[in-house]
Amino acid sequence: MRELVVGAAQLGPIQKADSRADVAARMIALLEKAAARGCGLVVFPELSLTTFFPRWLFEERAEVDAWFEREMPSAATRPLFDRARELGVAISFGYAELTPEGRRFNASILTDRTGAIVGKYRKVHLPGHSEFDPERAFQHLEKRYFEPGDLGFPVWRNMGALMGMMICNDRRWPEAYRVMGLQGVELILLGYNTPSVNSQNSAEGLEKRLYHSELSVCAGAYQNAAWVVAVAKAGDEDGHPLMGGSVIVDPDGFVVARAQTEEDELLVHACDMDATRFGKTTIFDFARHRRPEHYGRICAQTGAEIPEE
Amino acid sequence: MRELVVGAAQLGPIQKADSRADVAARMIALLEKAAARGCGLVVFPELSLTTFFPRWLFEERAEVDAWFEREMPSAATRPLFDRARELGVAISFGYAELTPEGRRFNASILTDRTGAIVGKYRKVHLPGHSEFDPERAFQHLEKRYFEPGDLGFPVWRNMGALMGMMICNDRRWPEAYRVMGLQGVELILLGYNTPSVNSQNSAEGLEKRLYHSELSVCAGAYQNAAWVVAVAKAGDEDGHPLMGGSVIVDPDGFVVARAQTEEDELLVHACDMDATRFGKTTIFDFARHRRPEHYGRICAQTGAEIPEE
Repeated sequence: MRELVVGAAQLGPIQKADSRADVAARMIALLEKAAARGCGLVVFPELSLTTFFPRWLFEERAEVDAWFEREMPSAATRPLFDRARELGVAISFGYAELTPEGRRFNASILTDRTGAIVGKYRKVHLPGHSEFDPERAFQHLEKRYFEPGDLGFPVWRNMGALMGMMICNDRRWPEAYRVMGLQGVELILLGYNTPSVNSQNSAEGLEKRLYHSELSVCAGAYQNAAWVVAVAKAGDEDGHPLMGGSVIVDPDGFVVARAQTEEDELLVHACDMDATRFGKTTIFDFARHRRPEHYGRICAQTGAEIPEE
Repeated sequence: MRELVVGAAQLGPIQKADSRADVAARMIALLEKAAARGCGLVVFPELSLTTFFPRWLFEERAEVDAWFEREMPSAATRPLFDRARELGVAISFGYAELTPEGRRFNASILTDRTGAIVGKYRKVHLPGHSEFDPERAFQHLEKRYFEPGDLGFPVWRNMGALMGMMICNDRRWPEAYRVMGLQGVELILLGYNTPSVNSQNSAEGLEKRLYHSELSVCAGAYQNAAWVVAVAKAGDEDGHPLMGGSVIVDPDGFVVARAQTEEDELLVHACDMDATRFGKTTIFDFARHRRPEHYGRICAQTGAEIPEE
């Protein structure tokens, strides 16, 4: 038994006018609640510090850069890091990263129990588009504001467990889980900001969208025998609804905790890292059962290549 | 709208003593029922012609070979092919294949509406083990009796649709769906024979096992925007229960038809191949969104490589 008590700290909406300091205070409140419930690790969502700004078109670079962090910890998040260190609780959260070289990523970090950053991830699977699209009900300009992550899907040893990170749309791509699974990942930390409405198909509906999210997360957990902590930023941001549905999923693909609100809400579960062993040594013992000689297309081509008529 | 009415022809149990001719007669009865309901294609399960013999240890080659087909159509299945041609219905089913060179595969075939074989698949992901395992509640000797498929995961044009096949345990491997997805697959035909009990964990239970099967199938369908027709051989074979749970799943990952019995049972659904378009051109437009530069481990390594302490 290698038990790690994990908190999934769902955030309710963040409005354009809210300051980073306001948000950090909310995150600290969730962190303290989690510490009181025995959590060793607390996971916050994608773009934890601001509204989901890729729904807006900004023409000026300065307008864009206002949503980005030039350093981490930043002035506004230092109190969060300090409190986490005092409580001895590791944290993970997402933010928009502007590097000294002027590169922009949709990023997340992972700390140890001392508040030291031990892992950084940059979102690989950017959804949406790069130019204003008048046919959409609203914009999803992630491909405009970010470049695809350049760090792959690393796995880190932290607190006696093998941990990886993914962000939002990554969770729909089985490749993301598998690359981590091939490094023995036991716990995947996943933050998301997902519109409640499909901008290209308004008939789809919230229920279907929640199902797609949970389906992808549960399959990724089961097929790699790993815990997944999937944490939403939820609720009405600037008049645009984001879905909730934060879940903690066990290595057998079952939901063990699920958010009930679209507000700041904490889910807690004691995750036994040894519960990953059965799957990893039987049906998903990759060394015995995988057949990479037939997987070539996955790495050799990007888009579909349709057989000729 | 490119509608293809598909029949999922679940088979109830086949006992050791049942002849191929007995089974072919049951398959013909299902085929005729499907034709009467307008099906253009009928899908039967893995190892359609015999009991799931890998649960038994056979020491003698002749005992093993008795379960294999040396040609297809065979004498026993020719009436099935003939009836399918008369009805103008395409069929797909699984069987144990013994090649002229003495190689053994867990195979399946696909015909067109004239009964001509247009596709063959050989199971890539063989579960189980190759030597008698006294610690298991029962044996699962697929790795003993078969070699892994050597044909990859091809996709064929048939009846105006792009079709692929997988067999049983393949459905738990996202790589299998993706390799077909990267060839534009619209309809995946999947037969299975899955014990109702986990031979290494009797506490797992049927409900959990049905969930794992459906989870994998629905995720594979959604993440590749393809129809999946998943067809069981079900019920008590030789005192060993096989689960049912045959389903037809739409390209959005939703079950549209589900078997109610563990007997011979036909599911019918009118599948619109154009329903695959939305997913393939938006969220799962691979050309726009995939990032193979970060997927290298999937093809470069078989087993997990754990980061050093």
